[in-house]
Amino acid sequence: MKVRKFWGWGFQDQVLSKEEEASVESRIALNFNLDEVKAIPIPLAKEIDLPKPKIETPQALEKVLSADHLERLNHSYGKSFPDVARAMLGSFPHPPDLVAFPTNQAEVVSIVDWADQNNVAVIPYGGGSSVSGGVETDVGDSYSGVISLDLRNLNRVLEIDKESRAARIQAGIFGPALEEELKKSNLTLRHFPQSFEHSTLGGWIATRSGGHFATLYTHIDDFVESTTMVTPTGVIESRRLPGSGAGPSPDRMVIGSEGILGVITEAWMRLQERPSFRASCPVLFDDYDKALNATRLISQSALFPANCRLLDANEALFNGAGDGSKNLLILSFESADHEMDTWLNRALEIASDEGGQFEIPQEKKVDAHKSGASGTWRNSFIRAPYYREASVRRGIIQDTFETSITWDKGFEFIKILKEKAAEAIKEISGKESTVTCRLTHTYPDGLAPYFSYSAYATPSTMIDVWKEIKLMTNEMCVSAGGTVTHHHAVGRDHRIKGYDLQRPEGFKDMLVAAKQGIDPKSIMNPGVLVDPKGFKHKHWMDT
Amino acid sequence: MKVRKFWGWGFQDQVLSKEEEASVESRIALNFNLDEVKAIPIPLAKEIDLPKPKIETPQALEKVLSADHLERLNHSYGKSFPDVARAMLGSFPHPPDLVAFPTNQAEVVSIVDWADQNNVAVIPYGGGSSVSGGVETDVGDSYSGVISLDLRNLNRVLEIDKESRAARIQAGIFGPALEEELKKSNLTLRHFPQSFEHSTLGGWIATRSGGHFATLYTHIDDFVESTTMVTPTGVIESRRLPGSGAGPSPDRMVIGSEGILGVITEAWMRLQERPSFRASCPVLFDDYDKALNATRLISQSALFPANCRLLDANEALFNGAGDGSKNLLILSFESADHEMDTWLNRALEIASDEGGQFEIPQEKKVDAHKSGASGTWRNSFIRAPYYREASVRRGIIQDTFETSITWDKGFEFIKILKEKAAEAIKEISGKESTVTCRLTHTYPDGLAPYFSYSAYATPSTMIDVWKEIKLMTNEMCVSAGGTVTHHHAVGRDHRIKGYDLQRPEGFKDMLVAAKQGIDPKSIMNPGVLVDPKGFKHKHWMDT
Repeated sequence: MKVRKFWGWGFQDQVLSKEEEASVESRIALNFNLDEVKAIPIPLAKEIDLPKPKIETPQALEKVLSADHLERLNHSYGKSFPDVARAMLGSFPHPPDLVAFPTNQAEVVSIVDWADQNNVAVIPYGGGSSVSGGVETDVGDSYSGVISLDLRNLNRVLEIDKESRAARIQAGIFGPALEEELKKSNLTLRHFPQSFEHSTLGGWIATRSGGHFATLYTHIDDFVESTTMVTPTGVIESRRLPGSGAGPSPDRMVIGSEGILGVITEAWMRLQERPSFRASCPVLFDDYDKALNATRLISQSALFPANCRLLDANEALFNGAGDGSKNLLILSFESADHEMDTWLNRALEIASDEGGQFEIPQEKKVDAHKSGASGTWRNSFIRAPYYREASVRRGIIQDTFETSITWDKGFEFIKILKEKAAEAIKEISGKESTVTCRLTHTYPDGLAPYFSYSAYATPSTMIDVWKEIKLMTNEMCVSAGGTVTHHHAVGRDHRIKGYDLQRPEGFKDMLVAAKQGIDPKSIMNPGVLVDPKGFKHKHWMDT
Repeated sequence: MKVRKFWGWGFQDQVLSKEEEASVESRIALNFNLDEVKAIPIPLAKEIDLPKPKIETPQALEKVLSADHLERLNHSYGKSFPDVARAMLGSFPHPPDLVAFPTNQAEVVSIVDWADQNNVAVIPYGGGSSVSGGVETDVGDSYSGVISLDLRNLNRVLEIDKESRAARIQAGIFGPALEEELKKSNLTLRHFPQSFEHSTLGGWIATRSGGHFATLYTHIDDFVESTTMVTPTGVIESRRLPGSGAGPSPDRMVIGSEGILGVITEAWMRLQERPSFRASCPVLFDDYDKALNATRLISQSALFPANCRLLDANEALFNGAGDGSKNLLILSFESADHEMDTWLNRALEIASDEGGQFEIPQEKKVDAHKSGASGTWRNSFIRAPYYREASVRRGIIQDTFETSITWDKGFEFIKILKEKAAEAIKEISGKESTVTCRLTHTYPDGLAPYFSYSAYATPSTMIDVWKEIKLMTNEMCVSAGGTVTHHHAVGRDHRIKGYDLQRPEGFKDMLVAAKQGIDPKSIMNPGVLVDPKGFKHKHWMDT
């Protein structure tokens, strides 16, 4: 098995080439007008001291609980900027006491029961790709201990129902393994979050993950047919139903519960046939507002493009997909059933009416989305996490924040957020920064803007600087009417000045009560989403 | 204002013509081989005695609370078969003590607060079209009294956001008034449940209403952008968001809550432009399984027909849309943006591959869905509730039950349910019955079959016979893996042998706890969906 980085994204062998590292360094020097850029070294596991586990492994669970040093490091954090920064600095004050690796649902039940009886907090862990503090094991002193419950051994596709195009799948399966298995039946979940390679089905469901596609079937929410969740008071298994009007949807309570209600162990998922028809065309716009308007109209046309991703001119430039003078709309359609030219042509008509410039590709390529401007952007997108690591080592913050907003407010919202965030970053970090924007998803009633920035700091200041920026962006999104997170979950990092204000108070009361109903001792992922009854611990973000 | 029937569907002037009445009578005589068919008279309000209200109207709420005799009759029941039967028989043992008619949200708050302080149960009431006991005021003796809270005066479209295609709408607005108002902006909610004329936005949201369209955007769930709900402990208002990954969706807790959590007062709803392009074609199949398979493949094609409603041969016959020898698939496409011929043609290709026979209409008619076989069926569909009333007066049960199931089980499920239900109805009622089936909705992973039957009884036996049949159909749907209700809500009638078994036990614990969190005295619609803590009353269905 490949060894995962405890200090960054992916596997230990997934790093930038020397040339890429050098390009990061020169870009940083150029961006922030620095004479010299120094990198802190990548930490070594053996050089990091961890506090001794506070709990002992009970004999009955010996096979599934581990106190292994590297596993404890690996399960201390997710992959947010401060997670990587703290790991890179070798700072691990609150590791899990133990890491659990159950191999089946019965073992998950045993672990949760034991934890419930022994006042041990349980942090469900899929791929550990959380960028919002969702898997962090810092739960305070009121618990006897804390375990990280890693689902990676629950990694099988258990059953495929080809007629209904659905499969029963274990929660710990990673994206590539899942797709490989489904491919044998010419099926696909067609859910490709940026974290795809390093995240799991259970994680996607727990965090309401957003896929790569821009419209219609892209959110994990829509693919869930039924779920099974282990809670401290029992297993909750919903029924496989294509549709039902029987009360509030049980699955919609599980989807987005971020581990605070239980451990998702498996789910029946709705699948699709693998697309064989594709039609795509990049469209350029001089005017950003017109580009936005074209995106709006296409989103409202019921054509349902697979991709309808608008990159502003700077975003295109920084991703090597433009010279910074034009806004780029990546438009593509996919189908397993029929040619999509009619669809694409109508969408291009709409774009053209708003001043969009394009050349319809003469030759249809199966992998058109992997070539040209779309392809350049795609590669940049996939390699982004590795570039970020290289920045962290140099104290430079490269981060993103995303939200969603209705169209009526969207145009002004994007403009103001880019400006205000850039100003605030300058004030916080002391150096100029450009905030760029792409739309990751569009809806008939609104859009999901995704902002990227890079901010100056040094290895010793970067965590504080990041925190100030994070609280500022949380607040900006929420106070302007958006959501604090469109598809990166709430975790612990999005609560302060964000989710805690956004969420209706009465809904919090319901959620806390519902948690109490099935997790009376509040052992499940305490501090995520809500504070369970009696929970007092302050998270580092809140201090 | 038109006067609503307290004994049946719709307004007092909406009744069958003499010819239609006669046709019902002769059909009954023919079906059940009877020499004579007698009708009980339509009851008169003034001849019905009601128990005196147990609670007095507090002075502060004098303007919004009423003890009017007709209103109390009107608000005693919904419109299920036993509701109409009991009303027709003049049986009203548990009317509301008072009926509330708030004119704004502040008054709703005052009423709920007063009820909470005085141990009075509150039954939210929209159009009163529930067919599952959702608005019945029989709550037992542990409350000081019970009020039916009618939202009909909260009936305005408050705000329209044309850019996002959304509107803020009060919950008490009825379907026709809502569409009339939206039409002024060339917009539509495009949600047309069979109850459309006599049901309200708030009711649709509270019951997870299913619209007339067969695929994609048809369920009210998908149209809700945000909700406002008055609970005994405060107002819960969610944020307008096109998409969000911030925790479990607050709206998804409100949608389907059937009044047990609070009173929905308004919502931001996603709208669509009014369709101007239509393409439709009826398709006939000799073989039902092939017809089902064509429906499955079209549902999985991502063509998203507006209508894809499969009527079995008997269902087509009974609705005047066939001679009973062929199964009828009503196929239609709608768009506000583009011609739909490409879509229709591809769907017809799929149908043809499965043996479907059709003639593409030569002339495109704007109202093609209102003519021919589709039109005949449509009219029959709209007038069905009035026909049912005429049956009730003659003791004949005409009812339906609906469910949903995945495709892998669907074929066998429909066949067996039709057979077994028909056998059981014969055993219960003593006379032969035919159970017919249409699909109301189709999904990529399954279908929603809707079964109709007519069963022999007399005015004095009809309620008992109905109850036996209802419990049998509840049990059949759930034990075969379906849902007890696809779009008719749970209310009180679908709990026994149905929802109480279908719903995961742990989800019930969460729902009861969540209710407790915002309705600690359990005054909101007690007995619907779940029994709140400490609630002991047995509903008539459970005795």
